Amino acid sequence: MSVAAEMTSIEPRIAELIRHSMALRPGDAVAGSCAGVLDAVLDQALTSSEGGKRLRARLALAAFDQATRGNAAQPARSGMLDLACAIEVFQTAALVHDDIIDESDLRRGKPSAHRALSTATRSDAIGRGLGIMLGDLLATASVDIANDASRRLGSPDGVVAAFLNMHKEVEVGQVLDLAVELAPLDDPESLAEASLNVFRWKTASYTTIAPIELALLAAGGDPDKSRRTALAIGRPLGLAFQLADDLLDVVGSSKRTGKPVGGDIREGKRTVLLADALAMASPAERDELADAFCAPSRDEALVRRVIGLFESTGAVARSRERIAALWDESRSAIAERCGADAPEDRAFAEACARFVPLA
Amino acid sequence: MSVAAEMTSIEPRIAELIRHSMALRPGDAVAGSCAGVLDAVLDQALTSSEGGKRLRARLALAAFDQATRGNAAQPARSGMLDLACAIEVFQTAALVHDDIIDESDLRRGKPSAHRALSTATRSDAIGRGLGIMLGDLLATASVDIANDASRRLGSPDGVVAAFLNMHKEVEVGQVLDLAVELAPLDDPESLAEASLNVFRWKTASYTTIAPIELALLAAGGDPDKSRRTALAIGRPLGLAFQLADDLLDVVGSSKRTGKPVGGDIREGKRTVLLADALAMASPAERDELADAFCAPSRDEALVRRVIGLFESTGAVARSRERIAALWDESRSAIAERCGADAPEDRAFAEACARFVPLA
Repeated sequence: MSVAAEMTSIEPRIAELIRHSMALRPGDAVAGSCAGVLDAVLDQALTSSEGGKRLRARLALAAFDQATRGNAAQPARSGMLDLACAIEVFQTAALVHDDIIDESDLRRGKPSAHRALSTATRSDAIGRGLGIMLGDLLATASVDIANDASRRLGSPDGVVAAFLNMHKEVEVGQVLDLAVELAPLDDPESLAEASLNVFRWKTASYTTIAPIELALLAAGGDPDKSRRTALAIGRPLGLAFQLADDLLDVVGSSKRTGKPVGGDIREGKRTVLLADALAMASPAERDELADAFCAPSRDEALVRRVIGLFESTGAVARSRERIAALWDESRSAIAERCGADAPEDRAFAEACARFVPLA
Repeated sequence: MSVAAEMTSIEPRIAELIRHSMALRPGDAVAGSCAGVLDAVLDQALTSSEGGKRLRARLALAAFDQATRGNAAQPARSGMLDLACAIEVFQTAALVHDDIIDESDLRRGKPSAHRALSTATRSDAIGRGLGIMLGDLLATASVDIANDASRRLGSPDGVVAAFLNMHKEVEVGQVLDLAVELAPLDDPESLAEASLNVFRWKTASYTTIAPIELALLAAGGDPDKSRRTALAIGRPLGLAFQLADDLLDVVGSSKRTGKPVGGDIREGKRTVLLADALAMASPAERDELADAFCAPSRDEALVRRVIGLFESTGAVARSRERIAALWDESRSAIAERCGADAPEDRAFAEACARFVPLA
């Protein structure tokens, strides 16, 4: 299926599934005086879901088509489409909570969900509370959609359990991400290891591992074998993806990411780039970096200086090397799984390659 | 089964299920430098789960025994026990987020989860972020436990979907609860209606409706019929329970609730008691109440004065009447469902009566 055709099937289906899953059962009324706020939350669920590149859903569909050689019956293929959409809905849920935790005002170039709800209710506290609930509602909807899809796929073994495991891994990843913020800066090697470990849990989990695993399970694959294949391809691919994303924050344009350049640095985020820069810096530069990241905030000039250090120390080049090596590892696992002759094989390899545009 | 025997089976099983569901898969390592924070979150999951009266789990088990006449096979009964525990785990998840939204420092007489995590990490922001994730992790665990239990029950139709519907109803209830905080105080009738509506969604949903519905589904009941029975008994029972709980906040002792008396008033919470007091107050008293609840905070003297007004206006008596009428409604539905001869019938009626100790 062409990219345009894929997007045409995924995009409206996500909105349809959210509306259906979040609707109240017939006959269940809410008090009129409160209906407006509930409607605002449901509207925000749809707004927050817009504008993704749907890389995850497209990877899942490509993996399913590769596993079934494109011969799945129509009801199963449409069940798989919904399962793929459920991953996207879960992502939105995770991002809504992520933005509350990071106190981010923007997401995909628009106000973040809790900010939009604060504006709508004219109260930061109520907006934040509604944001927490919106994340919860979307997380619930994602499992509901996956559970329905699994039934339409003939309830293959372990789909719902694997979907919930994906939730858990991302939640663990978010915990680890917060833990890294507490880590000292005097041990760059341990910081790099911890940051890569966060990528494994917080990003690779639902970005590349789960889409492949769920697709293979949906195609009737053995749970253990599906998991192993998903990890072999998806773990290095997901790490490469997050490294590329962090790199884009430093060398990219704000138009591309919807966020201002250097956002991670401004927030004082501990990243692999920072760890590599600390490891390769001179003692004086190391002190300068440590001071910059321990300060309560960083102005534009300091952000630019840190970007300069990330480049001059070789941290940017090191990230590019890391990305290339991880993509090589993922490509080997893809080659082991499939040839390059059938269109489904090529489409799957392309769906993977989309995660590493810089490689 | 005796209450003591029930608690002996429920209490340790909840901890066991949380540990099992939140454990990482074998071979999945997290970076050593971050493991401590993850352990703190998992420990808090267990601590936050302790100390409940398990009324919901016990209602679910009693409803299952009533429906199966106590003749369920052992694997099914133990699947039902886990499903009942999953409801309790979900409650803990909901309370963790509730306490973040309400900025509550205490829960069941101990520090609330996000406060405990703030203390452990010496950071309010990180503690709050970890609290949001702890709520997410427990919500995920609750569905995971319910999904496993459903499979052991022979996957009866709609158990997982009904469990997710319970999640959604409580999340909608929390949204409505926040919406009520924005409601004006000049229309007491609409305020009372809105507050009772919050009780339907935020409390009755998972306290009394879902435990009965899930038990009937687990016993193989028809989904529509199970839902109708659960609503007929559980809706008025859950409303009565929440009214009694709010009343306890005003007339009870802090020893009993683990929270200081008048806590809802101190927080300026819009309740049915407030709505009834406003409706029955003299114009001067009404102004006094409105001023008290619109003020940014309320001191001890003002809390005592409001409690006095709740009593003198007749709002406390009105709440007792409401509770009695709702309990009557629930009792009629119980009588329609079952006689009083079989021990399972009596045990079910007793499990319901436990929700209204003041009636």
